[in-house]
Amino acid sequence: MAVDIRAPRAEDLLAVPGIELGFAEAGIRRNGRRDLMLMRCAPGTAAAGVFTRNAFAAAPVQVCRRHLSGARGIRALVVNAGNANCGTGAAGLAAALRTCERAAGLLGCAPEEVLPFSTGVILEPLPVDRIENALPGCVAALGPDRWLGAAEAIMTTDTVAKGVSRRATIGGATVTVTGIAKGVGMIEPDMATMLAFIATDANVSPECLNAMVKSVADRSFNRVTVDGDTSTNDSFILLATGRAAHAEIRQPGSAACRELEACVLEVARALAQAIARDGEGATKFITVQVEGARDEPEAVAVARSIANSPLVKTAFFASDPNLGRLIMAIGNAGIADLDVANVDLYIGDLAVISRGGRAASYSEEQGAAAMKPADIAVRVLLGRGTAATTVWTCDFSYEYVKINAEYRT
Amino acid sequence: MAVDIRAPRAEDLLAVPGIELGFAEAGIRRNGRRDLMLMRCAPGTAAAGVFTRNAFAAAPVQVCRRHLSGARGIRALVVNAGNANCGTGAAGLAAALRTCERAAGLLGCAPEEVLPFSTGVILEPLPVDRIENALPGCVAALGPDRWLGAAEAIMTTDTVAKGVSRRATIGGATVTVTGIAKGVGMIEPDMATMLAFIATDANVSPECLNAMVKSVADRSFNRVTVDGDTSTNDSFILLATGRAAHAEIRQPGSAACRELEACVLEVARALAQAIARDGEGATKFITVQVEGARDEPEAVAVARSIANSPLVKTAFFASDPNLGRLIMAIGNAGIADLDVANVDLYIGDLAVISRGGRAASYSEEQGAAAMKPADIAVRVLLGRGTAATTVWTCDFSYEYVKINAEYRT
Repeated sequence: MAVDIRAPRAEDLLAVPGIELGFAEAGIRRNGRRDLMLMRCAPGTAAAGVFTRNAFAAAPVQVCRRHLSGARGIRALVVNAGNANCGTGAAGLAAALRTCERAAGLLGCAPEEVLPFSTGVILEPLPVDRIENALPGCVAALGPDRWLGAAEAIMTTDTVAKGVSRRATIGGATVTVTGIAKGVGMIEPDMATMLAFIATDANVSPECLNAMVKSVADRSFNRVTVDGDTSTNDSFILLATGRAAHAEIRQPGSAACRELEACVLEVARALAQAIARDGEGATKFITVQVEGARDEPEAVAVARSIANSPLVKTAFFASDPNLGRLIMAIGNAGIADLDVANVDLYIGDLAVISRGGRAASYSEEQGAAAMKPADIAVRVLLGRGTAATTVWTCDFSYEYVKINAEYRT
Repeated sequence: MAVDIRAPRAEDLLAVPGIELGFAEAGIRRNGRRDLMLMRCAPGTAAAGVFTRNAFAAAPVQVCRRHLSGARGIRALVVNAGNANCGTGAAGLAAALRTCERAAGLLGCAPEEVLPFSTGVILEPLPVDRIENALPGCVAALGPDRWLGAAEAIMTTDTVAKGVSRRATIGGATVTVTGIAKGVGMIEPDMATMLAFIATDANVSPECLNAMVKSVADRSFNRVTVDGDTSTNDSFILLATGRAAHAEIRQPGSAACRELEACVLEVARALAQAIARDGEGATKFITVQVEGARDEPEAVAVARSIANSPLVKTAFFASDPNLGRLIMAIGNAGIADLDVANVDLYIGDLAVISRGGRAASYSEEQGAAAMKPADIAVRVLLGRGTAATTVWTCDFSYEYVKINAEYRT
């Protein structure tokens, strides 16, 4: 039994009118692999992003924030793997800006219209000359049907490329949403970062897109956890080229906006789940649903306390229906006035905890059977209100320790 | 190279006038081991305690809180290993109370003068009849020099017994402080709990003792972490029999009170460190000091973010001087306005991070050498203020996963 984690086929990832992708071997950390990716966006593309809240935000994250807050649109994304350009001070910022300048020179746009991204080793100088030398190769390779290769070029310790496409009909027009992502934990010895890029040809105002990126992130990438550690480079970018034949979506709450958001959310959730499924050393994919919370932060606190507990995660690895650990994790979520006598818990359809104690119908054999599948749903009912959330995670195996204990070189 | 963790010798644990200890085989979970411990306190003993903040606080914790808040003193502690009596509802509360009644009957005191403690499997009924049957054996075995046997009787998956004694001179009189503890993580498959009992013959008012137990806990047991998980049964009790020949300590800030507190703190810290050293699967003992914080909660947040990060802990296991992970953990501590350009970090005496980046003098070889010892100090300087704290933890090895992934039976 293994977690279902497969790379998409090239034909599964649909071209997005207005978006072209190219990649090249820059030799940033290792030779013989494509480690530089360029995404070109048609003029008029709107972009919005959310970034890591880690105080050691990497240089490219700082540049992205600045360029996204400017008046100009976005014409290109440049992503390198192998070096995170983090903790690198003024030289790191200069390197990120030089990447933008070089890409801008090649594409005929302003440096402020380029967003840079880096993932890899922290605290080492970015070999920006190698990026500059490899960028012309990326430009020469640009094409609309190269999403899979782009997803591969941004991988670090991911075991498979991650990409998803969906279509929606908006105002009578067919709209495509395609996204790629990378990330499998705070990641290998010193390979950091979750990166996700989703593009659509929908026609959306920047304000609307900005609201959408935050709302989608909160229900997808911000609800996945491998080890509770947050990278210094985490970035999620949503691009809208405006090429689809429908009227511009301007109103955040409008029907067209909701339809597009649902489609983007579907892509984002599939990518987020792919990250948990490919979690370092994962043998199981676990969905933690919390219901009956007084408000959403409370539901998230309980879900995260379960999903991040090393003791709960090793129990899933062992297929051990260890009720005590689930009780412990719920009790540790920091809800001061939690009445445990109202708490129920299910693994799949099996009632495990009822009114704060072991369910009368529960047997150890049923529990062991419910913990066996590679895909497991835990459902907690707090009995305090109507708020709910879902968090995705994976189990905690020998392999996680092995991957993370191996020396970097 | 292994963590220095040794059991105390029987003669290292000094008798405390007014305290007697006895233990017996109750067969609560397994036969052939002493799993029940009784501590008898002389009349007039003052007691104070701090307990788990987990919402699923076990039945004995609820009873302890009630009995400690009563007007009477404390005459006995009863501790069983093998069953946590947690998540057991009204029947669990009744079982804890029956334990107190039985001990009270044997010792000739009121049930409210007895404190019950349990550690072991969560969510299973406490076999209170076995405790009742074994209690007379504990009483028959009572003696003042049996601290080591008492420490052994409360162990679950601890590999060694934990006990420490210190002496202080207060008001011209010699005062003894002896403590025992158990706990090595949230602990094995379903063996939960850190328990610590410290007794002194000092003469202290209950008010003074109450203030002391909280202050000491915050600088000892609340500063140790193995996996970030908090048990449902955690308890720390401080007892003062008042037999020493000095005037009663009544004033919380007085010189005599400070002297006694320093001695109790020394015992509590040694016990807390013994817990981290004996952490499940630990191969290294790690001291995380954070200085230059704006306030203590901020210092604690940074220290805990480092001490609880699975990525940092596996790097210590691998002796890998992985700078990126330390950066990541500091940045994740939730200090919104942290200026990373002021952050320095040392491993032992080696400057590793200087002003937010890699120290100019640092070399990978020095880093690898600094990560090798079984006893490692990490010092972080935040450069924001004068508050500081210290947290103790251990590394994260294959063995942790193995211990926690093995099926409970």
